[in-house]
Amino acid sequence: MAKKVAVVLSGCGVYDGAEIHEAVITLLALDRAGAEIVCAAPNVEQAHVVNHLTGDAAAGEGRNVLVEAARIARGAIVDLAKLDAKSVDAAIFPGGYGAAKNLCTWAFKQDGCEVNAEVARFVREMHAARKPLGFECIAPVVAAKLLGPEHPQVTIGTDAATAASVEKMGGKHVACQVREIAVDQDRRIVTTPAYMLAGRISEAADGIEKLVKAVLEFC
Amino acid sequence: MAKKVAVVLSGCGVYDGAEIHEAVITLLALDRAGAEIVCAAPNVEQAHVVNHLTGDAAAGEGRNVLVEAARIARGAIVDLAKLDAKSVDAAIFPGGYGAAKNLCTWAFKQDGCEVNAEVARFVREMHAARKPLGFECIAPVVAAKLLGPEHPQVTIGTDAATAASVEKMGGKHVACQVREIAVDQDRRIVTTPAYMLAGRISEAADGIEKLVKAVLEFC
Repeated sequence: MAKKVAVVLSGCGVYDGAEIHEAVITLLALDRAGAEIVCAAPNVEQAHVVNHLTGDAAAGEGRNVLVEAARIARGAIVDLAKLDAKSVDAAIFPGGYGAAKNLCTWAFKQDGCEVNAEVARFVREMHAARKPLGFECIAPVVAAKLLGPEHPQVTIGTDAATAASVEKMGGKHVACQVREIAVDQDRRIVTTPAYMLAGRISEAADGIEKLVKAVLEFC
Repeated sequence: MAKKVAVVLSGCGVYDGAEIHEAVITLLALDRAGAEIVCAAPNVEQAHVVNHLTGDAAAGEGRNVLVEAARIARGAIVDLAKLDAKSVDAAIFPGGYGAAKNLCTWAFKQDGCEVNAEVARFVREMHAARKPLGFECIAPVVAAKLLGPEHPQVTIGTDAATAASVEKMGGKHVACQVREIAVDQDRRIVTTPAYMLAGRISEAADGIEKLVKAVLEFC
C-alpha cells in the first residue's frame, strides 16, 4: 500500500514562505517513489510579504500562509489544523524563511522563538507515534525547538551561528555537506541542508531526494 | 562551454502565473544537464490574482508578473525587456495560466489574442536566429500565435478545442501523450503537454525532462 506523506508548507517563496524549489523537488521525489502526498499549511497570516525582486519587505501588504502555499500545491492542500497525525505515515517540512517566520518565529527570536500551535501539535503527535519526520534547509529549527528535550540530531549545514542556536534549543547539531543528509536513527528524523548551502538547484535536489528516500525507508 | 538557456516565467502559480512545478522541473533538468540558466519575465501587471485555495479571482488585488516570478527564481531574474536573444542559446516557456493570461491573452480571446510586446520581440529574435524554443503545457499557444505563418508543429496534449484554436492561429497541432514531447525539427520547436494532461507531478516531469534534453540537443 502506498505510504501517505504530509508535506507541510509555509507559504510560497524563499524569503517569506516555503522555498519553492525544495517543495517541488520533495513532491516530485515522493511521487516518483509511489507515495501518496497530502500538502498542508497553517491557516495564518504570513509574518510579512517580501518583494522577491528587490528583497525588501512590502509595506502594508498581507498574505495568508495557506492561500499562498496553495500555489505550490495547485490548490490541493488542507489546513494543517485539520490534519490528524493518524492519517499519514510520515511528514516532510521544506525550508525557506517561511519555516522560520511562519511555522515558528526563529528568524526573529532564535532560540527564544515560539512555534505555531498547529505545527507544534502535529509534530508532537507524529513524533509520539514514532512516525518519521524530514526537515529541509532551516526547517530543522522547528524540530530542535519542539523536540529539544530529546536532543534530536539534525543538520542545518555548516553555519556556526545557526548550529549554535540549534544546540541552545536542545538539538544536537551535526555538520553536513549540501548533497547529503543527517539521519537520527533513534528518533526517525532526517535533515538536509538544501539552500542553507546550495549554490545551485541540483545540489539541493540531491540532498532532498536522499531525504525523501530515507524518510520512506523509516515508514 | 555551457549552453545558456532563458526560462521565461509568467508569474508564480498555475491559475494566474507560471505553473510552479513545470518551472522548477525545467530549472532542475537544465542545471543537471550543465546548462547556465537566465530567468526572465515581462515587467507588467498580472491579468488578475487568483486565490489558489478557492480558485476565485481576488477582487481588487494586483501583482506584478516579474516580481512574482522572482519567487520561483529566488530573486535571480531579469526584466524580459532587457534580455537580448543574442545573449542566450535557447529559451523555454513553462506553462500555467500565466502563459495564456500574462504572456498573451489567449485565455480571454483565444485565436484573437494579443501577445505581450517583449515576449513577441524575444521569441521572434530567437526564432530568426534559428535558436531552439521549448513550450510547455498551454504555452505553445504563444508559438502558434507568433509563428503561425510558418505553421509550427506543436502539441497542447489532446484537448480538441484548444488544438482547434492552435490550428486557427496557423499552428499544426499534433496529439501527444503526457510523458512525451512533440518536436518540430525544421523550426527547432519542442513542446510537451505537462499539466494540460498530467494527473501527477511525475507525469509532467517525464515530458519536461525530455523537452529540456531535446532543446539542448538543438543548441
